[in-house]
Amino acid sequence: MKLIKNSILILFIMTTTISAFAQQALFGGQDIKSPEIKADNSVVFRLFAPNADTVQITGDFLPTEKMKTQWGEFDAPGKALLKKDEKGVWSFTSAVLKPELYSYSFIIDGFTTTDPNNPFIVRDVASVTNIFIIGGGHADLYKVNDIPHGTVAKRWYDSPGLGMDRRITIYTPPGYEKSNEKYPVLYLLHGAGGDEEAWATLGRTAQILDNLIAQGKAKPMIVVMPNGNVIQDAAPGEGHEGFYKPQFMVAKTMDGTYEANFMDIIKFVESNYRVKADKANRAVAGLSMGGFHSLHISRYYPNTFDYVGLFSAAILPNQNVSSPVYADIDGTLKKQKDNGYKLYWIAIGNTDFLYQANTDFRKKLDDMGFKYTYRETDGGHIWRNWRIYLSEFTPMLFK
Amino acid sequence: MKLIKNSILILFIMTTTISAFAQQALFGGQDIKSPEIKADNSVVFRLFAPNADTVQITGDFLPTEKMKTQWGEFDAPGKALLKKDEKGVWSFTSAVLKPELYSYSFIIDGFTTTDPNNPFIVRDVASVTNIFIIGGGHADLYKVNDIPHGTVAKRWYDSPGLGMDRRITIYTPPGYEKSNEKYPVLYLLHGAGGDEEAWATLGRTAQILDNLIAQGKAKPMIVVMPNGNVIQDAAPGEGHEGFYKPQFMVAKTMDGTYEANFMDIIKFVESNYRVKADKANRAVAGLSMGGFHSLHISRYYPNTFDYVGLFSAAILPNQNVSSPVYADIDGTLKKQKDNGYKLYWIAIGNTDFLYQANTDFRKKLDDMGFKYTYRETDGGHIWRNWRIYLSEFTPMLFK
Repeated sequence: MKLIKNSILILFIMTTTISAFAQQALFGGQDIKSPEIKADNSVVFRLFAPNADTVQITGDFLPTEKMKTQWGEFDAPGKALLKKDEKGVWSFTSAVLKPELYSYSFIIDGFTTTDPNNPFIVRDVASVTNIFIIGGGHADLYKVNDIPHGTVAKRWYDSPGLGMDRRITIYTPPGYEKSNEKYPVLYLLHGAGGDEEAWATLGRTAQILDNLIAQGKAKPMIVVMPNGNVIQDAAPGEGHEGFYKPQFMVAKTMDGTYEANFMDIIKFVESNYRVKADKANRAVAGLSMGGFHSLHISRYYPNTFDYVGLFSAAILPNQNVSSPVYADIDGTLKKQKDNGYKLYWIAIGNTDFLYQANTDFRKKLDDMGFKYTYRETDGGHIWRNWRIYLSEFTPMLFK
Repeated sequence: MKLIKNSILILFIMTTTISAFAQQALFGGQDIKSPEIKADNSVVFRLFAPNADTVQITGDFLPTEKMKTQWGEFDAPGKALLKKDEKGVWSFTSAVLKPELYSYSFIIDGFTTTDPNNPFIVRDVASVTNIFIIGGGHADLYKVNDIPHGTVAKRWYDSPGLGMDRRITIYTPPGYEKSNEKYPVLYLLHGAGGDEEAWATLGRTAQILDNLIAQGKAKPMIVVMPNGNVIQDAAPGEGHEGFYKPQFMVAKTMDGTYEANFMDIIKFVESNYRVKADKANRAVAGLSMGGFHSLHISRYYPNTFDYVGLFSAAILPNQNVSSPVYADIDGTLKKQKDNGYKLYWIAIGNTDFLYQANTDFRKKLDDMGFKYTYRETDGGHIWRNWRIYLSEFTPMLFK
C-alpha cells in the first residue's frame, strides 16, 4: 500500500494550479512578491512581463492627475512607470506612504489589469482592483486584529412591497449568538453602483466595527447592509439574473421606491434579530446615493431614527421624479425636527463634486433651525473618506 | 436650491469609477461584452487591447494540452488565439459548450490575466480566474434560482485545542431561522491550498444546497466549512496575519493536528446551532486533502459519523509523520466498520493522479470487508468533479 510522498505533493501542485503557476513562479524562474511593504512603509510593486514594452501602475497613493474629458476636467488617480530588469521583472517603489487602505492596477502596454501576485481584490461597480493596507493610525481599524470578531451573514428576506426575496448583509457583533441582550441597529446604505456587498468589502465594515467595539469606542450593534437597487434581488452574480456586468446606475434607483419599501427591511430585522426596536436604538446612514436614501428615509418616517448619517450625500431628488416620498420634503423635515433626534451628522470632502449641494442643504437646515453636526475632510467622493466617516460616526451612536 | 440633474449623474460616474472607465468603454469608444453566451451555448470572449501583439485565452472548456515539466507530462488547460478587429478588439468564439461552470484567463503577449469586462472571479490558492456558467442539466444546480435561499455566515469559533479563535463558513438552510426544528450537519472539508472560503466560492455549496433542497432531493441540512490549515485563524487576508500570498501547502496540514482537534468544531456547532447531535445526523466529506481529513476523522472518532464522503481523496499519511491520529489506522477502521454506518462514499475521476491510491485503498477496504459505495467519473483532480460529487453526495444523506 502506497504512502503519500513528496512527489505526490508536487503532483498536487501540478494538477490543481497549473495554469496559475505556468505563468510565473515555477516556470518563469521568478518568485514574485507584490506588493512588498517595506519597514519604512514604502511599497515595492513587481510584475513579471518580459514581453511588455511599458508597464505603469495607477493607484490612489500616487499624486492625482488632471484628466480632460468632454464633461470637463477631473482628478484621476496618478500613474508611475515601472522599470524592467534583465529577467523581465518590472518594479516600482512608492514614496513612504501614510496609513491607509490603498488600491491600484497595472497598465501593461496601455491595458489596465490586476496584479497577478496579489489575490486581494475588491469590486467597485464593474471594475476590480487590488488592495493593500499600510497599518498605523486609523488604518489599523481596517485590519483584522486578534480580538473578538462579529459574524457577517448573507441572508435573504422577503420584501412584500417589492414582491421578491432579496439578499442582505448583516453584521452581528461579537457575542451576539451567546447573549440574551438586545442590540441597537445601524442601517448602512451603499451608493450608486453598489449593492449589499459594497460596505462589507470596500467599506471594511466588519473590521471597523470589530475594532471599535474591542476598543470600547463603539457600542456593540447590528449593522444591516441592504441592497438599494429595487430592481435587483441581489448583487450581480448573486441573484436569479445570474452573471451580468454591473452598471453604475440601474433603473428606479432614486425614484422613491426604495424609501417607500424600507419598512420591509426594518420589519425583517426586528422580527429576526434580538434588537431594541425603538427610535433611540435605530440609526440610518449611507454614502452618496445611500446618503440621499438616508436623508429621505429618515424624514419620510420622521419619528423612527435618532441617528442619521449623510456621507458625501447626494441631496435632493431628480426634478423629473414624482413620488409621494418626495412630495413634502420641507414638511417632513419639520416633523423630524419637531419629533427630535440625537444626531444628524453630515460629512463631506472639500473637493467632493457634491460639496456645493451639501452646503446648500446645510443652509436650508440652518434656515429652519434643524440642528446637525458637520464634518469636513480633505478629498473627494471616494471610499477612503467613507471608511473614515463610518469610523467616526459609529462611536457616536446609541450613547 | 439645486436639484440633481443628469449632469450630476455623469459626475458621479466620473469620480467614482474613473480608473475603470478610463481603460475602456467611455474613452475607448468600445462597449465590450465578455463573455457573451450565445443562444446555442457557444461563447464569445472579447478584449480591448489595441497595443497587444497576440491575445490568447486559456480555460477548462478548451481541449487540454500536454505540458512537459521536469516532473513529467501533464494535462493543462488548452489555449486558443483571439483575432483582432480594426478597432483593437480581440475576440474568440468557443465551440458549443455543455452545461458547466467554466473558468478562463486571457494571455496577452505572454502575460496571463483576468478579463476586465467580467467581474465574476474566484480565487484558487493564489490565482484568480474568471468564471461563467452554461446552464442546463447539472449546471443549473450552480445557479442562483428564484427559490428559497439559505444563509451563509462567516463566524468565528473558539478552538481551545488550537489555542485560537478561528473563522468558519456556515450554511444554514432556508427557513432555519424561523423554525424550531433541529437539523442534521454535513462537515465539508477543503483541499490543500484551500480554506474556509473554498467550498462556498469554488464549490458553489450554497447554490447546490438551495437547489437540491428546493427540488426535494436533499434534506434541509447545515453545512459547516471549516479551515483545515491549523496554523491559520482564517483564510489569507481574513485573519490577523493580514494580506499575504496564499500557498499551496502550509505547515502542519496533514500531520494529525487538525483531526486531533476536530471535536472543537463539532462542539461549537452543536452548542451554537439547533442540530440533531447524533451519529445518524452527522456527515463528514472533503476533497483531496479534505478527503484525507474525512477518512482519518471518521475512523479516529469511529462512532461519530453515519455518512462519510471521500472526493478524490489523498489517502494515507506521509510516512515521516508520527501522530497518535495515524497510530492505529487498521484498528480504528475496524472499529468504524464494527460500529456501523449508513454510507461510505468514495468518488474519483479516472484520470486523477490519486486514482491508483484510491484503488489501493478500496482493495484494503475490500480485504477487511468494509463496505463502501464507489463512484467513478471522467476527468481529474478538478473542482468540476468536486461540485458534481457534492451534488450527488448530499441527496444520499440523512435519509
